[in-house]
Parts: sequence; structure tokens; C-alpha cells
Amino acid sequence: MTAAEFNNWLMARTAECEQVIAYYLPKEEGNARKVLEAMNYSVRAGGKRLRPMFLLEVARMYHAKEALYQPFMAALEMIHTYSLVHDDLPAMDNDEYRRGRKTTWAVYGEGMAVIAGDALLNYAYETALTAFDGADNEEERSRVIRAMKRLAANAGPSGMVGGQCADIETDRDSTQLDEAMLRYIHEKKTACLIDSGLTIGAILAGAPEDDIDKLAQVAVRVGLAFQIEDDILDVTSTKEVLGKSIGKDAAEGKATYVSMHGLDGAREKAKELTSEALDLMDSLSVQNPFLRELLRQLAERNK
Amino acid sequence: MTAAEFNNWLMARTAECEQVIAYYLPKEEGNARKVLEAMNYSVRAGGKRLRPMFLLEVARMYHAKEALYQPFMAALEMIHTYSLVHDDLPAMDNDEYRRGRKTTWAVYGEGMAVIAGDALLNYAYETALTAFDGADNEEERSRVIRAMKRLAANAGPSGMVGGQCADIETDRDSTQLDEAMLRYIHEKKTACLIDSGLTIGAILAGAPEDDIDKLAQVAVRVGLAFQIEDDILDVTSTKEVLGKSIGKDAAEGKATYVSMHGLDGAREKAKELTSEALDLMDSLSVQNPFLRELLRQLAERNK
Repeated sequence: MTAAEFNNWLMARTAECEQVIAYYLPKEEGNARKVLEAMNYSVRAGGKRLRPMFLLEVARMYHAKEALYQPFMAALEMIHTYSLVHDDLPAMDNDEYRRGRKTTWAVYGEGMAVIAGDALLNYAYETALTAFDGADNEEERSRVIRAMKRLAANAGPSGMVGGQCADIETDRDSTQLDEAMLRYIHEKKTACLIDSGLTIGAILAGAPEDDIDKLAQVAVRVGLAFQIEDDILDVTSTKEVLGKSIGKDAAEGKATYVSMHGLDGAREKAKELTSEALDLMDSLSVQNPFLRELLRQLAERNK
Repeated sequence: MTAAEFNNWLMARTAECEQVIAYYLPKEEGNARKVLEAMNYSVRAGGKRLRPMFLLEVARMYHAKEALYQPFMAALEMIHTYSLVHDDLPAMDNDEYRRGRKTTWAVYGEGMAVIAGDALLNYAYETALTAFDGADNEEERSRVIRAMKRLAANAGPSGMVGGQCADIETDRDSTQLDEAMLRYIHEKKTACLIDSGLTIGAILAGAPEDDIDKLAQVAVRVGLAFQIEDDILDVTSTKEVLGKSIGKDAAEGKATYVSMHGLDGAREKAKELTSEALDLMDSLSVQNPFLRELLRQLAERNK
């Protein structure tokens, strides 16, 4: 495909993700209006919508039903967003800006940001549960149950939150941060939600188990590569390009792939992981050249 | 029943709730051990286990299956606990003690307490989802789906979190706090999780719809009465009896049922609500004298 074809596809898919996400956001009304505003502010702050886009693309590859996968697209983005809202809190990373906009606590106050994150997490499950309404038979209901379990396991203490915990712990005591621990943190903090993006669409479609396994392996590699890119951008990019603070890791003396392997070594590692991920994609029973190209470009992103 | 019979029953039921809750707590192992410790510390800090006890009693009244209701007992207590962990944060109520023990952030730090609350909320859904494994047929799966939806709606922005939002907002601007708003806050913050306790067991058992409706009405009344008691205890009890700070509402000039109606007026209101709740209980198609007595005593609690 040409660069123009890919860019057109990406614009169309991003717009579609935005539309699905917007559809599932709560109405800002009633006595709890402020927290609904804070939820929507946080989700609308944007980002690339990569996780719901992965979910959408894989769901289409295997012909899943819209009524089953659209709630999970929105739910996954809500889970991703809640984690950012809480990560940005003064008690966590203390970030006032993200994606060039004030973070949720900086606009709505700390207490409201805590419960806005909680509200997003709860609402993610409420939203995902509506997929049951689109299930017409026992087989589809079983798939939704399996997808719900995967969504929850990837978000909770055995998934993303587990990675956040190890991240906080190694910040306190940097002697614990060897390469195995760094890999654990990235696999959990980043790869787990990508796993939800890459596997849930396939699960909902009843895709071959072998493909689901391979998509999970892609998720680990893409997640690690993505996080290594983050480490690289933290030392090579600017606040203007990135829309968030940079140079924090180095300033805090934090071990990263870059501090462990140097810039070139980190870049090499990211390329190797991406190459493995693409080989796995090529071995699936169905092909999606756009998704493949998107995964490839993520390894060369500059923001 | 005699006081001794009731007390024996209450001790046995509390032990049973503790056992079920303990069974579903995560093992403290692996790289994310600290957050698992913080989760378990928070849940083990105790309390009366009222919500899972309600769930257990109602489930038994209507002969629900253990494999269906036990996961919801644990999940509901985890949701209740996550809300306390986040409420106690410096950015929220800034409480260092609860139930006579240091609060989670005071022991594990603010950042860890934020993600321990998140982990509990996620894990609550993971735990509730295991109820599907105990569902043997389509009818039982439908009941679990309905129970999951109720659990989520009662916890999220249309439920408990909605009440927390209005609570924070009226703290900022007390002119918004009239009796209707105070009722809204209590119904959402307190009654919604009691609704999960009183209705989910009935839903899982396939109880008559009329009974489920009445149990929901009981939940609103018990929740309000319980909260009015809280307001009363805040001015009449001591830190030693209550195990938490007292006199905070008055010190902060916060409107409560007591400041609006006086102590006697508030007590009267609590009795009226309890009496309505008991009448509703008496009109159910099945009777549970112990649960009835428990609800009655909650209106006269002194801690």
C-alpha cells in the first residue's frame, strides 16, 4: 500500500474509534455532573486510540459482530484513560500536562481526579457488560464472558496495576530494577492493555485458538517495543513534539532501556521486537496489511 | 428469637463472611507483591461485613447456589473497601485512621494506596466474573449477567461514585447542600452498595420480581437510616468507640441530618425509615427473622 493509502485508512479508523468512544461516554447531567465532565474531559483529551483501533481491526479480520466488539473498544479506552488520570496525580507521577493539555487533577482538583478515574474504571465494566445485549446465542455469550475475563485480568493486579506497583516499588528502591524487572514492568504496564486490544476482537469472533495465542505474543512484543520507544523519546524529543514533560527519567536517575543499553542498543532492541511481532502477524490465518503497517510504524514513532 | 440466639447467628455469619472474603483475596507473591499486600491489608482491616452478609442472607432466603453468590459477596466487599481506601486519601478525606487502624495510604504511601484501590476495584470484577464458572445453564448465566450489571451500576458514576462527586462538590460550595442533595448523596454513596447486597442474592436465585423491587426499596431506607446514624454518631460518640475521627462534620460546618433536624429529629427520621424498611421485609414472599433483626439493630447501632 502507498503512504497515502495508509494515511487515509488511519484517518478513517481514528475517526471511527472516536465515534464509537464518544457514543459510549456518559451524558453530563444530574447531581454527579462534575465527575461525568471530568471523565469525558479525560477521555476526550485524545491520544492515538491505538488500543480500540487494534480491537476494531482484529474484530474485523475475523468478522466479529459490531454489537459485541464496540462496547469493548470503548471500555478498553476508558481503562487506559483511568490509568493515565491516576498516574498523573501528584501522589503518583505529578504531571500537570499530558498530550499538551492540562491533566485531569490540574483542572478538576485531586479529589475529583481520584473519583473520575474510579468512575471511568467502573464505567468501563458497565460498558463492556452491554456486549451481552448483542449476544444472540449461547456461543456468543460464552465469547463475551471470556472477553470480559481477559479485559479484567489485563487491567488488574495480575496485569497493568501489577506493573504500576513494580514501577512504584523500583522508584523507591532502584537496586531492584534489573532488566528482568524492567521487562516485567513494561509487559504489565503497557503490553497487557495491548493484549486486550489484540485478542478481544479475535475472542469475540471465535477466531482459531492458534491465532489468539499468536496475537497475545504480538502484544508482548509490541508493548515492549512501544515502551522502549518511550524511553528513547524521553531523551531525544521535546515537550512541544511530545505534549508532555521530557527528560524526567534521566533527571531522576531512573534505569531505562536507554540507560541499560544506550540509545543505539535500545533502538536495536525495539526493531528486533517489532520484526518478531510482524513475523507473528504474517503467520496468522488471516491477513490485515493496514494493521501490520500500523504496528511497524509504531516502532518508528516520534511522539 | 432471643438476644443470645441473634448474637450466635451474627457471630456465625460474620465468620462465614470472613471465610468467603479470605478465600477470594489474592496470594501475596510475585513482582507486584506490595500492591497485593496493600489490597489484603485494606480488606482485612475489617468492618462489619454487612454488605456481603446481606447478600448471603438474601441468597439463602431464595436458595441461590453458593458457586453463584460467593464470588459476589467477595466482590462487593472489595468494592466497598476500594471506596474507603480512596476516600481516606489526603486528596479526599485525609484520614489516617479507620476502624482503629492506620489507613492504607498511611501505611503504604499515597501512590500505592491509589493503585491498591484501583487493584481492588479491578479484582472485584475479576472475582464476580468467576460466578459464570458456577452457572450450569442459560438461565443461571442470565442471572449472573444481570447481577454483574447491577453490581457495576451501583458502584459507578450512576451509583456510589456519583454520590462521592456530589459530596465533594457540596464540600466546595455548601450553598448547594439542601435536604434533597443530602438525600441524593446518601442514597448514592451508601444505599447503592446496600442495594447490591440486598438484591444480588435474590437476582441470582431467580426470586420473584416483586420481592427484588421491595428489597431495592429496603436498601434505600436502610442506607439513609445508616447514614443518618453516622451523622448522629459523629456528634455523640468518641474516637475510641468509633475507631475513627469524630466531630469532623461540625468542625467543618458541614450540613448533616443532625444540623438540619437536630439530634431528636434525626433520630426520629432514622426510626421512621427503619420501620418502613421492616414493613417491606415483612411483605416479602419469604421471611428471614435474623436478617430482619440485623436491619432493625443497625438503626440503633452505637459504632
